[in-house]
Amino acid sequence: MKNPKISDTVDAVKTIIITVGAELTSGHTINTNAAWMAKALEPLGLTPERVLTLRDDVAVLAREIRSAVKTHDIILITGGLGPTHDDVTKAALVKAFKTRLVRDGGALAGVRRFFRGIDRPMAPVNEEQADVPEGFDVIRNRYGTAPCLYKEAGKASLFALPGVPFEMKKLMKTEVIPRLKKRVSTGFMARTTLRTVGIGESALYTLVEESGVVDDNVELAYLPYFGQVDIRLSATGETSAAARRAVRSVARKLDRVVGQYVFGRDEQTLEEVTGEILVSRGMKLASAESCSGGLFASRITSVSGASGYFLEGVVAYSNQAKVKRLKVKQSTLDRYGAVSAQTAAQMARGVCATSGADIGLSSTGVAGPGGGTKEKPVGLVYIGLCCNGAVETMELNLGMDRNRNQQRTSSEMLAWLWRVARDL
Amino acid sequence: MKNPKISDTVDAVKTIIITVGAELTSGHTINTNAAWMAKALEPLGLTPERVLTLRDDVAVLAREIRSAVKTHDIILITGGLGPTHDDVTKAALVKAFKTRLVRDGGALAGVRRFFRGIDRPMAPVNEEQADVPEGFDVIRNRYGTAPCLYKEAGKASLFALPGVPFEMKKLMKTEVIPRLKKRVSTGFMARTTLRTVGIGESALYTLVEESGVVDDNVELAYLPYFGQVDIRLSATGETSAAARRAVRSVARKLDRVVGQYVFGRDEQTLEEVTGEILVSRGMKLASAESCSGGLFASRITSVSGASGYFLEGVVAYSNQAKVKRLKVKQSTLDRYGAVSAQTAAQMARGVCATSGADIGLSSTGVAGPGGGTKEKPVGLVYIGLCCNGAVETMELNLGMDRNRNQQRTSSEMLAWLWRVARDL
Repeated sequence: MKNPKISDTVDAVKTIIITVGAELTSGHTINTNAAWMAKALEPLGLTPERVLTLRDDVAVLAREIRSAVKTHDIILITGGLGPTHDDVTKAALVKAFKTRLVRDGGALAGVRRFFRGIDRPMAPVNEEQADVPEGFDVIRNRYGTAPCLYKEAGKASLFALPGVPFEMKKLMKTEVIPRLKKRVSTGFMARTTLRTVGIGESALYTLVEESGVVDDNVELAYLPYFGQVDIRLSATGETSAAARRAVRSVARKLDRVVGQYVFGRDEQTLEEVTGEILVSRGMKLASAESCSGGLFASRITSVSGASGYFLEGVVAYSNQAKVKRLKVKQSTLDRYGAVSAQTAAQMARGVCATSGADIGLSSTGVAGPGGGTKEKPVGLVYIGLCCNGAVETMELNLGMDRNRNQQRTSSEMLAWLWRVARDL
Repeated sequence: MKNPKISDTVDAVKTIIITVGAELTSGHTINTNAAWMAKALEPLGLTPERVLTLRDDVAVLAREIRSAVKTHDIILITGGLGPTHDDVTKAALVKAFKTRLVRDGGALAGVRRFFRGIDRPMAPVNEEQADVPEGFDVIRNRYGTAPCLYKEAGKASLFALPGVPFEMKKLMKTEVIPRLKKRVSTGFMARTTLRTVGIGESALYTLVEESGVVDDNVELAYLPYFGQVDIRLSATGETSAAARRAVRSVARKLDRVVGQYVFGRDEQTLEEVTGEILVSRGMKLASAESCSGGLFASRITSVSGASGYFLEGVVAYSNQAKVKRLKVKQSTLDRYGAVSAQTAAQMARGVCATSGADIGLSSTGVAGPGGGTKEKPVGLVYIGLCCNGAVETMELNLGMDRNRNQQRTSSEMLAWLWRVARDL
């Protein structure tokens, strides 16, 4: 562990996010709020030291708030501010700070204004939303009925925000972030991410470590997902320029070592980068999918502007579709089977011929969990690529899980397309 | 608060989920693992009391583990078991339990087997993955290189799982859940979920509340997502049979009130249910997608056995593909445009005619963010359905977000297909 951890260098300001709600702890709602808030803090040089998710329990939440005030500098709470019985944040703040609820005139006017604005009658329960713990500042919420609460408690700045994502985001952007900006001035952190495909996490790690380009001042993190691995570089410096310089220098060196696998930077996706290459080459794309079932086409068309290079796709699930739509020979199916390199090749060639595309990708395989045989087990997949008339195929040996096999197949198709288009 | 909170009744066994990784605290990865794990615990009557997300910091993680062992009965940790320097969970376990790392023969053999299986060379760093904290049981991970660790510590059962979602899920299902089942026997809780489509959350809520079928002993929760709303029924009882009886009784009454919207129960998906209906009717399906870009076909083929009813799909992105593959008339495109009810109708009819399917679904629209005009703004979508020769179309007015529009379009196609197939 050669590199300094971020926590050693930029945690002058310790941040905690507390998200409240049984829908979160039970897993029925995925906690996207916490991720969004953390990313919103990043430009300030803040990375949360921890994210805590709790059920709607007054006592537990109050205990955690008391503890956070002692250990953290910035405390962001979301959720539990609504009008129903399971909204417990205000009660927990009252308990934690040994205070009481008082009706806030400004907040009450705000709630009334909100209901007039949406032209709906106001329920009595909404009036209680104007009750706030004494000693807290009320930040007006123009986007809903729950007020945003704010308190300087010892060395900690505490914000309690509504859990409705839209309201939380608006309040973060317009109210919380500007206040935090005044408070923190770490500022001197720089980050970049190199996004790779076609190499595993361990192999990438080994390549990088053995290259000697690693720099003590730049922290590297490896983040794998579905056939791609991100290398995230972070550096802190005495000035913002120094931090950026350190990151850029290591990124350049890394590019020499693993550049062949790097398809993009930061937020760029493989789908977008591949699309841009196809546009710049003036090339048209088509797809002929069997086992990936349309997932490849769906990923390609997830990019705005895909109509500029994607002509069409065929999801040729039945043999008849392979023959009629893609001109696969019946004799090939009879002799080698639908799941074969020969069929994959003819599908890729066929979709180019019938669509007029310059590049065609194909897939055929046993996605599972049924349909496997001893010769052709579940997870056996062939993908094909036809480029300007030349066809190649690739055999994949994936696992037993249907959805993962479909995902992996589409990822391999995409990665192959990217490599071929780039190298043309 | 009429219903007893679940937390009041079943927290004899206190559970905590600890997820580890800077990619989670920083918000660069959304914490779907925690949600998945919590849902997987639900059938055991366990709801996590808290979810804690931490960066890769040995000292902090060790402290939290020591604390959790005192306060919780079940501790599930994911992440930080990989081969790179930012994988700190084993070091934290060593520190928390004042033990040391020892190389585990079984685990080493497992890692070697894994690399032989995928036919890739094994990096030296992977050997270290067989080092485990002394005193822990090693649960073999057949799906990756990081072993799963298990320890009974005082009254707590602690499991450390890899953070790769696929590996974590497989290990949870095959190893962790079965062990936990033996340990907990809360038993006296019953749950069922009615899954609906084609009605909004508020309308559904109003229908149910006004029907008077609500029962004080059965708690209802409304869980909306992408055009579907789940109604979850939970009851606790003095015996397991009593709890099940209470839930069944309310579910039956609800079925009379909102049954027309209910497509399935519990884990059933709309894709699966629709597939089963098509199989039972002996009907064949085909799709002709423009703006949904293959997502509908991809969702249909996500179901094992889809090849029994899904013949083929065409992703007709270009006008040429619409004409050549689907027999849409050039005059229709000229007169009404590609985004029109007329084109959607011809696409649906065309894919039935060219594939021989009994039912064909189509989509054409402005997915955005580019391509909108005053007459045809972003979010305007037409979908078509051809069944046994008769065609209908539907106009959707969606929002500005491309991926959401594609998702919503495919959901509406699927919901329509289900309704039509069910009522045949």
